[in-house]
Amino acid sequence: MKTLYIIGIGAGDPDHLTLQAVRAMNAAEVLFIPHKGRDKQDLNQIRKQLCERVIAHRDYRLVDFAMPVRESEPNAYSQSVAHWHAELESTYGDLIAEHLAEAQTGAFLVWGDPSLYDGTIRVLTRLHARIGGFDWEVIPGISSIQALAARHKIPLNGIGENILITPGRKLPESIPDNIDNLVVMLDSRSHLSRLTGQHLHIHWGANIGTPGEELIEGPLDQAWPRIETARQRIREAQGWVMDTSLIRRIRPDQR
Amino acid sequence: MKTLYIIGIGAGDPDHLTLQAVRAMNAAEVLFIPHKGRDKQDLNQIRKQLCERVIAHRDYRLVDFAMPVRESEPNAYSQSVAHWHAELESTYGDLIAEHLAEAQTGAFLVWGDPSLYDGTIRVLTRLHARIGGFDWEVIPGISSIQALAARHKIPLNGIGENILITPGRKLPESIPDNIDNLVVMLDSRSHLSRLTGQHLHIHWGANIGTPGEELIEGPLDQAWPRIETARQRIREAQGWVMDTSLIRRIRPDQR
Repeated sequence: MKTLYIIGIGAGDPDHLTLQAVRAMNAAEVLFIPHKGRDKQDLNQIRKQLCERVIAHRDYRLVDFAMPVRESEPNAYSQSVAHWHAELESTYGDLIAEHLAEAQTGAFLVWGDPSLYDGTIRVLTRLHARIGGFDWEVIPGISSIQALAARHKIPLNGIGENILITPGRKLPESIPDNIDNLVVMLDSRSHLSRLTGQHLHIHWGANIGTPGEELIEGPLDQAWPRIETARQRIREAQGWVMDTSLIRRIRPDQR
Repeated sequence: MKTLYIIGIGAGDPDHLTLQAVRAMNAAEVLFIPHKGRDKQDLNQIRKQLCERVIAHRDYRLVDFAMPVRESEPNAYSQSVAHWHAELESTYGDLIAEHLAEAQTGAFLVWGDPSLYDGTIRVLTRLHARIGGFDWEVIPGISSIQALAARHKIPLNGIGENILITPGRKLPESIPDNIDNLVVMLDSRSHLSRLTGQHLHIHWGANIGTPGEELIEGPLDQAWPRIETARQRIREAQGWVMDTSLIRRIRPDQR
């Protein structure tokens, strides 16, 4: 039986790796490293540097593979992702067949935590159901949400409160009445701007844990232009931006 | 200046510790270890074992301290917690004054992630605003939510979906229309039972990462009695239960 690890590597800081992740990386004979085109070359390099840094032996192979590109279908996001996952399933199947011998162990290194807004678990579940022949394990990692809160030194929730985590593209027009704290991930299209003018406060961070990390905090209306500028600056300097926000209401007596 | 680390130690598995957490634990001269009465003696022991396991020297001191007990005020939960936090603030202030010399470093080891349903950040923020005299840092940890998803090998969200994290006591009567995935933490009073009869599916786990870990998955109506039995069994065997659930709707065509 082949074994596959889906390893959460944290939000950018190499020290986010858990002891469990380090152990799994050391146990893997093959590490599959995606590249997604020039823009994200950095992320490919970070994964390779992590391997060099924490794997104690040199008997492992890095297998670079091209990530299929997701076609943008703005009116049919979930279909476009589903289609992309089907391609990924075939890519992963080929990788496992070609590069892993029987009883060998391979690993996928997933940014953040594999259970949050990442397709690897979904793709391997489907592949496993279709062809079997491997066992697999998921190793949790520090998500950008936790890294954001840690860097700002804040809890995500007030006492007894709830937290809604939403991707940027599903961001509501305002914080729903039944929600206390709003976490926004993957807001590449700046949907956040629609929340201005509503007496909200934001804790924002991008590329947290990397040398290019930026943190901004304040009333959303004042922070928003600074966030837009910071995003552009980071994209130019690092080639990629991954940002996360925590948004709450400003109480009337604090306005 | 004194330094304090608030260190997330993960959901129970010692291997959830991050490299950053291990580094911080090794840098601390004093580790403050709470005890909360006989029932939770185990948690006190687990923290001490973590220190023995990952701290490479023997030049550290463990300082046991009694956690103030939170008075139950069922109709005024947040006041009761706020009152408790005020007592904690005074306790932490005394600990820092008595046990940390100038320029020394102390650490609090927090179960799971310090930003999620834990008061340590809030208490130290207030203490810092009131008396100052120390610098502090938050180190994120694997939460029980991520550990739950990893052990069940599932993503928390479907493609493009959102996730609501709620404490048991704030659990709504049903999954709100604007919510796709519901995560319930700290449901010590079994509020979950109110969600039966609504065509829901649950992934449940308790004491995840510890030897007493239990996982249950299935339609909530069938899983619920098994969860109640498991909770009781774990409480008797381990003295404490910490459980987490992920709940979703069962689509009409899958009922």
